[in-house]
Amino acid sequence: MLRTHTCGELRLEHAGQSVTLCGWVQRTRDKGGILWIDLRDRYGLTQLALEEGVETAEVREQARQLGREFVLCVTGKVAERHSKNDKMPTGNIEIRVEKLDVLNPAKLPPFLIEDDTDGGDDLRMKYRYLDLRRSPVRRNLELRHRVAQATRRFLDGQEFIEVETPVLIKSTPEGARDFVVPSRMNPGEFYALPQSPQTFKQLLMVSGFDRYFQIVKCFRDEDLRADRQPEFTQIDCEMSFVEQEDILRTFEGLVQYLFKEVKGLEIGMLPRMTYADAMRFYGNDKPDTRFEMKFVELKNAEKTPPTADQTQDIVSGYSFPVFESAELVVGINAINSAVYTRKQLDELTEFVKRPQIGATGLIYARVEADGSVKSSVDKFYAQEVLQQWKAAFNAAPGDLLLILAGEANRTRKALSELRLEIGQRMGLRNKDTFSPLWVVDFPLLEFNEEENRYFAMHHPFTSPKPEDIALLDNPQTIGQVRANAYDMVINGVEVGGGSIRIHDRTVQARMFSLLGFSDEEAQAQFGFLLDAFEYGAPPHGGIAFGFDRLCSLFGGADSIRDFIAFPKNNSGRDVMIDSPSPISGGQLKELSIATAVVGK
Amino acid sequence: MLRTHTCGELRLEHAGQSVTLCGWVQRTRDKGGILWIDLRDRYGLTQLALEEGVETAEVREQARQLGREFVLCVTGKVAERHSKNDKMPTGNIEIRVEKLDVLNPAKLPPFLIEDDTDGGDDLRMKYRYLDLRRSPVRRNLELRHRVAQATRRFLDGQEFIEVETPVLIKSTPEGARDFVVPSRMNPGEFYALPQSPQTFKQLLMVSGFDRYFQIVKCFRDEDLRADRQPEFTQIDCEMSFVEQEDILRTFEGLVQYLFKEVKGLEIGMLPRMTYADAMRFYGNDKPDTRFEMKFVELKNAEKTPPTADQTQDIVSGYSFPVFESAELVVGINAINSAVYTRKQLDELTEFVKRPQIGATGLIYARVEADGSVKSSVDKFYAQEVLQQWKAAFNAAPGDLLLILAGEANRTRKALSELRLEIGQRMGLRNKDTFSPLWVVDFPLLEFNEEENRYFAMHHPFTSPKPEDIALLDNPQTIGQVRANAYDMVINGVEVGGGSIRIHDRTVQARMFSLLGFSDEEAQAQFGFLLDAFEYGAPPHGGIAFGFDRLCSLFGGADSIRDFIAFPKNNSGRDVMIDSPSPISGGQLKELSIATAVVGK
Repeated sequence: MLRTHTCGELRLEHAGQSVTLCGWVQRTRDKGGILWIDLRDRYGLTQLALEEGVETAEVREQARQLGREFVLCVTGKVAERHSKNDKMPTGNIEIRVEKLDVLNPAKLPPFLIEDDTDGGDDLRMKYRYLDLRRSPVRRNLELRHRVAQATRRFLDGQEFIEVETPVLIKSTPEGARDFVVPSRMNPGEFYALPQSPQTFKQLLMVSGFDRYFQIVKCFRDEDLRADRQPEFTQIDCEMSFVEQEDILRTFEGLVQYLFKEVKGLEIGMLPRMTYADAMRFYGNDKPDTRFEMKFVELKNAEKTPPTADQTQDIVSGYSFPVFESAELVVGINAINSAVYTRKQLDELTEFVKRPQIGATGLIYARVEADGSVKSSVDKFYAQEVLQQWKAAFNAAPGDLLLILAGEANRTRKALSELRLEIGQRMGLRNKDTFSPLWVVDFPLLEFNEEENRYFAMHHPFTSPKPEDIALLDNPQTIGQVRANAYDMVINGVEVGGGSIRIHDRTVQARMFSLLGFSDEEAQAQFGFLLDAFEYGAPPHGGIAFGFDRLCSLFGGADSIRDFIAFPKNNSGRDVMIDSPSPISGGQLKELSIATAVVGK
Repeated sequence: MLRTHTCGELRLEHAGQSVTLCGWVQRTRDKGGILWIDLRDRYGLTQLALEEGVETAEVREQARQLGREFVLCVTGKVAERHSKNDKMPTGNIEIRVEKLDVLNPAKLPPFLIEDDTDGGDDLRMKYRYLDLRRSPVRRNLELRHRVAQATRRFLDGQEFIEVETPVLIKSTPEGARDFVVPSRMNPGEFYALPQSPQTFKQLLMVSGFDRYFQIVKCFRDEDLRADRQPEFTQIDCEMSFVEQEDILRTFEGLVQYLFKEVKGLEIGMLPRMTYADAMRFYGNDKPDTRFEMKFVELKNAEKTPPTADQTQDIVSGYSFPVFESAELVVGINAINSAVYTRKQLDELTEFVKRPQIGATGLIYARVEADGSVKSSVDKFYAQEVLQQWKAAFNAAPGDLLLILAGEANRTRKALSELRLEIGQRMGLRNKDTFSPLWVVDFPLLEFNEEENRYFAMHHPFTSPKPEDIALLDNPQTIGQVRANAYDMVINGVEVGGGSIRIHDRTVQARMFSLLGFSDEEAQAQFGFLLDAFEYGAPPHGGIAFGFDRLCSLFGGADSIRDFIAFPKNNSGRDVMIDSPSPISGGQLKELSIATAVVGK
């Protein structure tokens, strides 16, 4: 090796040793006749010192020529520092430089290579290889490596075997949009890139591989948002001869292990919440349970409320038109928030009225120091009614009740957003606190009004709960059928989801039929799987974790982009390598395709 | 879990325990009033027993209905067997069945699910999920998993970090043909799938990640041979601040570790051979060194022989026209093979004359028991000359000398094939013997007569040896420039290759120019890398191992296909899922492409 040590490892105990370090010039200072250089590598920073009259004039002259980000190879003796720096692991020593080789000079970088950089997003994406030099970005990728290693260690220890499934597969109409790859050897035909290895992992179960996993790239050609990338990574898992309980236990174990190994945290057993409860009490199938603030219903006139519990109506009959006409009146208790000013409440009202949230207004009620309630609808509700509300919310003096009303689903969704906003404002969504849970008992199917048909809520291979299968016979009750499906949610983020699968050809064929496939279509698209089910398919189920998202959660970041070495921007472009790009006419011809760009 | 134990774990010590097993019916026998079933899972086979008058009539009746590959869940007591089977780990016990559930019936499989199957290649590919049930195939994938795990363990322990590089990248003209992916969001533009993450791993070095690896899918749209797949997997590695010696030591360490962990073998240090020696003494840059049988030159009239050693001409001047006109006369000593019959020698002559080998004939000479030499060219060569040959080959009574003559490169290539054939016939190419080595000092460039230009022998990022750089200035000596490039070869198979890279923009630009790129083309294709080299690129180098091939070598197989879960056939088709396949007009339109199939 060109170096004897890294820039992160020298300590006082090395004093007097002759060492060679390689790295990048972080900064140089010339002060009181001493020239200081901070040399950086992946492992840390080490200070180099060149003093007039001590180090040779030649080496000092060389050092004076150095710019930021020059690559050096430096030999010298480790010496104790005069003024130590407790914040740096190497802060007790410096290197007295005897020999200095410039391995490569550097142009001035277009932005500062510091923890806090002055580079904008676009510039940092174009020079991603420089952005990756910054410690916060480097640490993200180191974290990602550790999470991947720990995942493999845990699953290998549980007899899971990692099997690579193909990347060049077949386009299917269900799910998101596929990326496709024209086949040169089969003109007019295309491969598709996998949205997930779903069918392959099920076939591996049919093959008897009984515990499979893979950390695998998946692809979706969807319009991109901040937290989506056209290629992303899953921890994909499947098990045979199991019931839902076995899967929950096994992967709860994985996540406990990861928290312990990567964050040093004991998270304990994961609580479970039904989808119905999640919707009723948090308005969200991925509730952020770092804080309570559960929904309290004051009126529920739904035909089929999410859960069987009755809600007592304590708002109707007082001629307040908004509540009279509402299907649902529901609120949260922002504890100790009665201090909110009129201006702050107006802000919250504006917040819930934003089109993407869509509430028509916000009703509030304050519990005063004396226990009386002061509301924005005092005109309609007398104090004794307001006291009933207070009791329903279990509110105390100083609390602020925030209430929405309207169509049930929309109102819940809006209140969920408001709850998260209030939680944020109250500082209840700390990135260092982790609140994982399982959400279970998802509906099997969702009705899509636009296409006037049912879609699989999870995917078409998800098994209905055996006790609900009879409900599939009645068009009125199909929507009530629950699936053996589950999500793992941490801090309001769905980090993983899965299900017990169908392993019976007849049930699978029926499922395809419910989803609007003709027998021919089902056979053409998924015939191999239906066939496989006839040759001895075991009961099986699995889960897939969003690996990028899991890493960003561990890293306390909101976006997955910072945890991907070379991400694409919102137009799906890699601006560093300038991809995608046109290809040659020769390539197109070989692939038997032509571009058909409108207007070109 | 539905089971308490697997089908591979029960022993005599479990006798008397009540257990539940799940698995597939391997076979059933009904003999002497006892019905036996072998139940199979990934872990092994366990015998079930149902005896008339002992097990209930109901269970016996159920069992009689079972067919091969039915999936069962069976509960019963572990009992000592009357007639034990030493060949099975569970051969001392059987399960006396109390309860039997058919989890799924099975149609009769289209081929036998046995170690030796009656299924042809096509059938087994179509029903790959059934082929994967067979132990030999399953063991291959288990081996692959172990090699991957051990690789990651070793590299992680050496501070390498695994970084995922993108799959959707940019098409480049150098190298093999790219698979491309039309971009919906960028009409008329295409991503390419990576042939390797070469430029990305170099950028990671520029970023300071100093030790990178990835086990990663790569893609090449080439016409397929038995041992090639359109998607394949590499162990891709790169290091900074290193010289060639550091890379060789580090990855020698990896391979030693893998042999130890996976095969239980100590392989020791890897010998090294120059490319020149490999060509001169084995006629091959990936010599199979499980056996010696080095080439012996009897005449060498090359202008620039591979190595500086002189060859004494001991064949010219005797009027044998074949040798007189030959650039090279070279042979091997097939020790103790003088017993070869005339017929066998004729076979060998036919072998070397096959068009893909291309020799014009084979000369042989036998060393008789009395030390005299009997040759096929006795007419031209007197005994005393033949004795000189014998001495050159260091041959002893009973040895057979096989000699080819002609144009140097072609003759070496043919003799290499003959050497491998003879080694095979002599049983010297045992699959359980492993002879790894490094081949070093490859030429930097190869001249391609057809295109009348130089191509990079390794790739355009490979660094010339500093001491040879001056040779680049003279068109006459360009071909002699050696690269800091190396291959790892095991048993005649190139399992890995790499190089020290160029890290200087000027040298890299010069390299592109030597390869026929204009400055504009180089900038358009690789501008991001050339730019990166200006911002402080460290000296770096790396290696990539063919992971599929490494696994097949460990598994003692010739083809990589058996070590890939879902391989494609020689037309690039997955016949199981029937891919590639046509896509819809809507999909084409969204992607702004049209198919342009000739004749359609």
